Amino acid sequence: MPERVAVVGFGVTRFAARHPNATYFELAFDAVKGALGDAGLTTKDVDAAVYGVYNDLFERQFMQDVLIHDYLGLYGKPGVRVTTGGSTGGYAFREAYLTVASGLHDVVLCVGAEKCADCFDYVVGKPTPEVVKAIAYSADMTYEFPSGMYAASSYALLARAHMDKYGTTEEQAAKVSVKNHKNAILNPIAQSPMELTVEEVMKSRMIAYPFKMLDCCLYTEGAAALILATEKKAKRITDTPIWVKGIGAANDKAFTGFRSTTDKMGKYGDIADLRSHYAAAEAAYKMAGITDPIHQLDLAEIHDAFSFTELQAYEAMRFCPPGGAGKFIDDGIPERAGTLPCTVSGGLIGCGHAVGATGIMQTGEVVMQLREEAGKKQVPVKKGNGLVHSIGGPGSCYCTVAVLGRDKEKGRK
Amino acid sequence: MPERVAVVGFGVTRFAARHPNATYFELAFDAVKGALGDAGLTTKDVDAAVYGVYNDLFERQFMQDVLIHDYLGLYGKPGVRVTTGGSTGGYAFREAYLTVASGLHDVVLCVGAEKCADCFDYVVGKPTPEVVKAIAYSADMTYEFPSGMYAASSYALLARAHMDKYGTTEEQAAKVSVKNHKNAILNPIAQSPMELTVEEVMKSRMIAYPFKMLDCCLYTEGAAALILATEKKAKRITDTPIWVKGIGAANDKAFTGFRSTTDKMGKYGDIADLRSHYAAAEAAYKMAGITDPIHQLDLAEIHDAFSFTELQAYEAMRFCPPGGAGKFIDDGIPERAGTLPCTVSGGLIGCGHAVGATGIMQTGEVVMQLREEAGKKQVPVKKGNGLVHSIGGPGSCYCTVAVLGRDKEKGRK
Repeated sequence: MPERVAVVGFGVTRFAARHPNATYFELAFDAVKGALGDAGLTTKDVDAAVYGVYNDLFERQFMQDVLIHDYLGLYGKPGVRVTTGGSTGGYAFREAYLTVASGLHDVVLCVGAEKCADCFDYVVGKPTPEVVKAIAYSADMTYEFPSGMYAASSYALLARAHMDKYGTTEEQAAKVSVKNHKNAILNPIAQSPMELTVEEVMKSRMIAYPFKMLDCCLYTEGAAALILATEKKAKRITDTPIWVKGIGAANDKAFTGFRSTTDKMGKYGDIADLRSHYAAAEAAYKMAGITDPIHQLDLAEIHDAFSFTELQAYEAMRFCPPGGAGKFIDDGIPERAGTLPCTVSGGLIGCGHAVGATGIMQTGEVVMQLREEAGKKQVPVKKGNGLVHSIGGPGSCYCTVAVLGRDKEKGRK
Repeated sequence: MPERVAVVGFGVTRFAARHPNATYFELAFDAVKGALGDAGLTTKDVDAAVYGVYNDLFERQFMQDVLIHDYLGLYGKPGVRVTTGGSTGGYAFREAYLTVASGLHDVVLCVGAEKCADCFDYVVGKPTPEVVKAIAYSADMTYEFPSGMYAASSYALLARAHMDKYGTTEEQAAKVSVKNHKNAILNPIAQSPMELTVEEVMKSRMIAYPFKMLDCCLYTEGAAALILATEKKAKRITDTPIWVKGIGAANDKAFTGFRSTTDKMGKYGDIADLRSHYAAAEAAYKMAGITDPIHQLDLAEIHDAFSFTELQAYEAMRFCPPGGAGKFIDDGIPERAGTLPCTVSGGLIGCGHAVGATGIMQTGEVVMQLREEAGKKQVPVKKGNGLVHSIGGPGSCYCTVAVLGRDKEKGRK
């Protein structure tokens, strides 16, 4: 069995459309400073680092990680970059977990940062052609992109399949958008805090049926950092360690199965059900001893790149049966005041999607909630467990799920 | 202490200037097929995967890893991409090690692959402008590239500093090139097997003083794969497990220290001595219990992106004292028949540099040597230990070092 690993510090910058006066390494520095301050540590205490940076083209820089490492003054220590599309933050957290659980390093920094300044032409106020490439290259360039598949259109197909199979409606998805935009109002880092109605979401501009503008998250600039530590170190650092009780990850491509060397298409079944999400949750739950998520979790941060994706995640996370997501939101269960508040940070729809930073920000949200230090966003914590879900890739090919939990016996700060 | 982790399988494709008839996922598949065959396993036995793919622009594809994962049929299992410049293979191996050592997964596949087909215009027979970008973006685009610093020129500065400080000569570096091109003659996968003289290296075209054409490695296409396993699994899989006895990693930027938030420049000292290499070796040696490398190692695979870099690595790996690398090669110690054969695969100079695959290929070389299954390349194995050194980034900012060892008591196949 792996060693126990705790999260002992969290820091995050504002998630904003632009941070025109900060470079990516300055954003990362701010997040790290916050995390180290939260843990009461300095860079001297950090044994190794994991960087989640997704997009090379945004900053025209392939090695942002080592430049951040340098800027932080972590020279002579290991630092590795992880990149797995939208789940970059989720996988970076998993790698940081593995680094501590392995016994090789005691205190590990996990930093996600994303900027797209160089992809934005400030003179004309528009993205440059480089951002178009950045998005194209994020699809499967061999088959999918030439067929018109990119982030929104591929997720839209998954949503469409869910509508067909289960009768899920656009209005039900719109409720996720309303909820997450509203949750963001309480989050000081959020880019898109808004009071909306289902009608307003429904009337927003069509992007890729059934996704309207307000069903989609926005590209965002920002950084987030976490400090992970061994049990021994964690207990010295904080009275409120938040334990990584379970961690699961699974990759899968819903499309282009015909290319697989195995009999995949037949096995995939139905793209309405996101198989990698089910597999990642199953692994995390097994490790954490979660058998009844709705009664064992206080909250869940879902990767809501699109409103429909959050619906599909409810099912894969086993919050409700397959096909039950529409009723789940109709019943108000994932609302702030519901039985299982989902995405109380505001998520990607409310905060924005600072790709490499997103999963780390959402993990930090669960950490702060379990510590009951989430400020105005705080939801009741009774069971002591929270879940973080992170996905990436066109057709939702990457998925990571982490279950975090606090000590039951411990008093909180 | 981490759990014991063994390498139980290795596969590699030919390293070639072009593989015009294979995609990157086909190359990866071939290497994985070799590694699985070597271990007597199938993809069903693989619990998780780590992908080392460096360059997004080469294939205009940001998520090559998940497309390889799909092609291999590893759906529903974790797969993460690691990218750290030239050391991508070295860091991917470290992440695979951590994944097993953590206790989370028993059998982990580590795959490196690199293609640059889309960066090559077959009609005019020249690289496209995209390859120029790919190289530019590999430098620090903020400060270094605009100052004329890219891979060759930044390593050339380090070499120049070594010449100044220690009196190392271009002829001594040329001997590394002669040795590694010659070693490649015995390696069936090598791109550049050649009998050369020091004079021929000296007369080759100047690239960035003191580097001539034949001091530099070439961009290459190819793939390599390793299978890592827990002690329990390894003993069931093979009679010749090769243990990961030590693993160290350290990052550092020799240049742009002025940007660091700490007092770096003063601390760096002299760029003639590659501090990250010293730190990575120290960590690996400490873990492996290596106190006298030259008498405890049978061989070392050095990341010879440039001939001078191998010289500098001899010192950082403590094969000789600082400044002793010139004499070390003059004395013939790193030759095939010398006391400590270095880079018997032919290395990057002899085999080519298939970026993400390189460190994995070189790790595999040490594995096969320790198993005494290296064919014509085989060197004598008496002590049972070998070292792999992997670096990346302009100014040699990333470094990983692994010490591998075989069971002393076990018979070999």
